[in-house]
Amino acid sequence: MRLSRYFLPVLKETPAEAQIVSHRLMLRAGMIKQSSAGIYSWLPLGYKVLRNIEQIVHEEQQRAGHVPVLMPTLQSADLWRESGRYEDYGEEMLRIQDRHGRDMLYGPTNEEMITDIFRSYVNSYKDLPLTLYQIQWKFRDERRPRFGVMRGREFLMKDGYNFDLTKEDAMHAYNRHLVSYLRTYERMGLQAIPMRADSGPIGGDDTHEFLVLAETGESEVFYDSQITDLKFGDREIDYDSVEQCQAVLEEFTSRYARTDETHDEAVFNEVPEERRRSARGIEVGQIFYFGTKYSEAMGATVINDKQEQIPVHMGSHGIGVSRLLGAIIEASHDDKGIIWPEGVTPFHCGIVNLKQGDEEADAACDSLYQQLTNAGLDPLYDDRKERAGAKFATMDLIGLPWRITVGPRGLKNGVVELTCRKTGESEEMAPEAAVAKVVEIYKSL
Amino acid sequence: MRLSRYFLPVLKETPAEAQIVSHRLMLRAGMIKQSSAGIYSWLPLGYKVLRNIEQIVHEEQQRAGHVPVLMPTLQSADLWRESGRYEDYGEEMLRIQDRHGRDMLYGPTNEEMITDIFRSYVNSYKDLPLTLYQIQWKFRDERRPRFGVMRGREFLMKDGYNFDLTKEDAMHAYNRHLVSYLRTYERMGLQAIPMRADSGPIGGDDTHEFLVLAETGESEVFYDSQITDLKFGDREIDYDSVEQCQAVLEEFTSRYARTDETHDEAVFNEVPEERRRSARGIEVGQIFYFGTKYSEAMGATVINDKQEQIPVHMGSHGIGVSRLLGAIIEASHDDKGIIWPEGVTPFHCGIVNLKQGDEEADAACDSLYQQLTNAGLDPLYDDRKERAGAKFATMDLIGLPWRITVGPRGLKNGVVELTCRKTGESEEMAPEAAVAKVVEIYKSL
Repeated sequence: MRLSRYFLPVLKETPAEAQIVSHRLMLRAGMIKQSSAGIYSWLPLGYKVLRNIEQIVHEEQQRAGHVPVLMPTLQSADLWRESGRYEDYGEEMLRIQDRHGRDMLYGPTNEEMITDIFRSYVNSYKDLPLTLYQIQWKFRDERRPRFGVMRGREFLMKDGYNFDLTKEDAMHAYNRHLVSYLRTYERMGLQAIPMRADSGPIGGDDTHEFLVLAETGESEVFYDSQITDLKFGDREIDYDSVEQCQAVLEEFTSRYARTDETHDEAVFNEVPEERRRSARGIEVGQIFYFGTKYSEAMGATVINDKQEQIPVHMGSHGIGVSRLLGAIIEASHDDKGIIWPEGVTPFHCGIVNLKQGDEEADAACDSLYQQLTNAGLDPLYDDRKERAGAKFATMDLIGLPWRITVGPRGLKNGVVELTCRKTGESEEMAPEAAVAKVVEIYKSL
Repeated sequence: MRLSRYFLPVLKETPAEAQIVSHRLMLRAGMIKQSSAGIYSWLPLGYKVLRNIEQIVHEEQQRAGHVPVLMPTLQSADLWRESGRYEDYGEEMLRIQDRHGRDMLYGPTNEEMITDIFRSYVNSYKDLPLTLYQIQWKFRDERRPRFGVMRGREFLMKDGYNFDLTKEDAMHAYNRHLVSYLRTYERMGLQAIPMRADSGPIGGDDTHEFLVLAETGESEVFYDSQITDLKFGDREIDYDSVEQCQAVLEEFTSRYARTDETHDEAVFNEVPEERRRSARGIEVGQIFYFGTKYSEAMGATVINDKQEQIPVHMGSHGIGVSRLLGAIIEASHDDKGIIWPEGVTPFHCGIVNLKQGDEEADAACDSLYQQLTNAGLDPLYDDRKERAGAKFATMDLIGLPWRITVGPRGLKNGVVELTCRKTGESEEMAPEAAVAKVVEIYKSL
């Protein structure tokens, strides 16, 4: 993309309403614009990162064998009356009447609707196991929306639901989700720690929250410092293997790690003192096993191999897709701006032309742009007639991991400058070498 | 995908509520499930086609230089009070109050919100031209939703908005949209004819609707039969060229083609009688130029090169993404089921194993599956223990363009059968030849 043809409305001033750094940076980098309290438009740069995150979530869900669907944002209240949650849910549920006076709501979650889909079609244990998921907009009418996309009212979430014959099968689905979530967050450059949590209005006994450590997190968390050394990495895993998934769960959840809701001082004190940590965390996902809560209430049953009709065991599993942008920025920025992890960056590489209009510099930039594009990368070329300082400030603010700087002086010596956003280190090299290095970095992801 | 791991709830009976063939087939093929009147869940097969259509729309929009954003589904009523449309819009607008009693609405279209985004950031003619678009869910509270996704209440639409300094520039944006729409529909296997139309509640003078001819269309249309011979094909076009875009517009709109709203019998009668046609059509898109209607009402102005503050010229341009599934099926089916055009098919090729459990047949199917996948294609392998007849019926119903049938008898002679869904013709050939042929077909798209 050439910046002259893009829409990147960066702000010079820091918006007064933003209390936390991710919100400030998303506004300043022209990623989002508030349209009402807790409701945002995604401007081109923000939309691009949102789509990248969505794509990673899709890929990892499908790798785990989960099947994508898409449910509508508006639901009939009748489904929620069946489960008993219509009255229970409280003021966070946005209730709506249509022109015929029928009670509807903007879905805050979808246990009822997916259970209705399941019971409409599936009757036999032979069709199990089954995990359906979607990435769709939700609405929760927060009393006090804040922190930008971190606690918005209209937000994008991946919600997945497993249907299994037995509790054991459902626990495998639970473990499989835990494994796939570890992979998902790591691909985004995040360390998200699974912590024992409270089930809240979803219900159920088994639940883990995934938390990213950050000073601005809304939850207080307590953990054994050994847990931050764990990495899923690029290990191969067979998602059908009960043993393999169980082993990963054990590895990542056997050490103490809890939110304040489930924190137990006595148990925590068994951790050696030098490893005890308390910090703040941002919740970026949660997995639940809740058994037959919804399947019994709503009659989602299958016939087993003994011809008995039994309610299916279910769980639900969420990733806060839009909130992840905030979490990633909270975890990865400096005082100049955002530092995107390579896995989610909106553009792979910036190109800064120090002397727009100079024939040689323009030609070199065009050539770099073409080479990067041909290699399947998506560069952002700042081709505006602006001072170098303004161009650098924009690139630093929007946080592309790599930048190639092109100027007449360097070109005389046959070099351009390749700069790493994270370390700030620059290296002079031939244009082709810079392209080769950037291509190599993204290939290795 | 292996069918045993997929969720494809095909129905044997024809649902009573469906009045038109696309609705019937989408229900029978397990693509959608109604959740409330005019509101649907997209089951895996339907979701996959929806995503394919979305992808084509994105690619063609971006090829034309348009920049993607994403606006929220819920909007503040205040914006619509500025344009005067809040009161005008009538009962199709779903009005909502949030917990604090603020008036909101579920966006039926987004002229106000995009104009608000524009005026918040853009002040200078130097930042023009600009076209922003999104693909987002909309809601129109139809009094009598019907025909499945063709006239639903919650529906997915691409809506794009151009901002230009002059009427001439805005007309170029109009023409550019017309060209990109022709490409878009052709890639989906559709012939959509631009017809002079009425502007309705959007306002404006210049507008064309794109109509797909089909018996079940809701509009009566009148046209010169020469128009159905036009094809955009794979011609190269420079979207920045005013002349090239203008020439395409003239080629595709100079012959008589109007909906009943703008039909003029006297003008129609000037077409030679043997070329006069009346038929029914499905509206799948519309482009508008409406000048300064919204920019004046909402103060979206820029400073021009004479330092004058002037309102921008705008247009809006829509493609009915979810409705396109219905339109494509209306245009492409037979009495056995859907016939997907290759550009949008949910899976590229079906694999039918005539004797599941037979060692040789299973191995041959696995190998075909792997070869197709390695070539970047997405096959659907029916690996269920079902009779051949049931497998064929499912494949015909869900409409994959190509099917490879594998049985022990053929394998003895070293052949499988490649069948074209559209013609019904089958050919015996070596498995590798079948793969090569299917790969070649999709490469040539």
